[in-house]
Amino acid sequence: MRFMTTSDKPENSAATADTADTTAEVTGIAAQDWDRASVDPQYRAAVVDLLGALAYGELAAFERLAEDAKLAPTLVDKAELAKMAAAEFHHFERLRDRLTEIGEEPTRAMEPFVDALDGFHKQTAPSDWLEGLVKAYVGDSIASDFYREVAAHLDADTRGLVLAVLDDTGHAGFAVEKVRAAIDEDPRVGGRLALWARRLMGEALSQSQRVVADRDALSTMLVGGVADGFDLAEVGRMFSRITEAHTKRMAALGLAA
Amino acid sequence: MRFMTTSDKPENSAATADTADTTAEVTGIAAQDWDRASVDPQYRAAVVDLLGALAYGELAAFERLAEDAKLAPTLVDKAELAKMAAAEFHHFERLRDRLTEIGEEPTRAMEPFVDALDGFHKQTAPSDWLEGLVKAYVGDSIASDFYREVAAHLDADTRGLVLAVLDDTGHAGFAVEKVRAAIDEDPRVGGRLALWARRLMGEALSQSQRVVADRDALSTMLVGGVADGFDLAEVGRMFSRITEAHTKRMAALGLAA
Repeated sequence: MRFMTTSDKPENSAATADTADTTAEVTGIAAQDWDRASVDPQYRAAVVDLLGALAYGELAAFERLAEDAKLAPTLVDKAELAKMAAAEFHHFERLRDRLTEIGEEPTRAMEPFVDALDGFHKQTAPSDWLEGLVKAYVGDSIASDFYREVAAHLDADTRGLVLAVLDDTGHAGFAVEKVRAAIDEDPRVGGRLALWARRLMGEALSQSQRVVADRDALSTMLVGGVADGFDLAEVGRMFSRITEAHTKRMAALGLAA
Repeated sequence: MRFMTTSDKPENSAATADTADTTAEVTGIAAQDWDRASVDPQYRAAVVDLLGALAYGELAAFERLAEDAKLAPTLVDKAELAKMAAAEFHHFERLRDRLTEIGEEPTRAMEPFVDALDGFHKQTAPSDWLEGLVKAYVGDSIASDFYREVAAHLDADTRGLVLAVLDDTGHAGFAVEKVRAAIDEDPRVGGRLALWARRLMGEALSQSQRVVADRDALSTMLVGGVADGFDLAEVGRMFSRITEAHTKRMAALGLAA
């Protein structure tokens, strides 16, 4: 989906080890491959949801970046955004092909997430080039943080794919450089973009809640029914880590979070 | 640029042979490589124009296809258009990199063609999915016919690159299948789309004239000053061939041209 990208990897390996005694049969999933893990129909359904959400997220990101390319002030900037859009599309292809490979119809897997993602993009249509850059950066980073957290609890095959499609498309560096330069030139821009980033975070959280409420298998996996060491307290800590990372990124952009 | 694609290769090798006696020193260019051909500053300027026009055409095609993907009735159709858009972007990258390789600034080479291409896309914004498909097919095909004709008269290195980026992105088959199905379902659609295709052809010709009038080196190459066997009569025959190919493609779509 690449709502966002971060260089901080989740540091929850210690936490997982702590809870390993009580969830021994679940901890096993991260050590299993897909063939073995997917025997459990609930785990399988959760992964299909996850891949479907990621796949549609990539396709929506492609569209959003292609749209933002139109706002680019120069041909070089336009080409840079088009490049990111093309990269998102290739991530989409890998996820779609994986769904087909495991015998799922990609469209059916994606459809449950169309409304939430389209809703997010509709509510947060950037009104200029800088808002587009901040959205791409903040959004990609938050989504990437979230999927990396989840990935640590997946079977080895699914984890490898998820981490591969979260691989940085060069977005972050580009956005940080352009946004910082704009704030240096006119500090008032910083205030406006800080408000914008807060709105993005709020909208992302509200759409995520909607998805979690709708998708049983996925949310059960998140709160610990299926995958490794994910209990409600752990979900709370995960959200804290994501929020902290967001705050650090805003500071890197020169914005108050 | 991929305004268009055709399976008909230009059949002007005979014509070139006929005029070979009078333009012997020019005929040589097709047999030369870039290093030798580009010693002539006027030939060099014409090729830079050509690569610049093609490069911006690909970038504009990327944007147009990404935009049309929003009109897609299904996720599968959306993904298909996004795939074509990504392919156009990769063509753009090859052209931009080639401009850099021969010591030209890509943005400077593209800029003279921005207004004409943006103008074309602005005047021909599709109002629905089928108009978008017809535009992509007709436009790509006409542009491809034109560049293939020109390619036959270029040095070997430039020709190879131009033919590579004109390589079919799967557009044609996809558009023909979808448009024919829509006409089968409701024959009135055929009349509307035939008018639309005529408008596209008219707008493409008027923007091409604008470019040719503005760009001395490029138009001199086209009318025979620089490259092989391209005199005014030959340009007339080229336009006839392109128009004939367009008529055949319209028939394949089930439309009167």
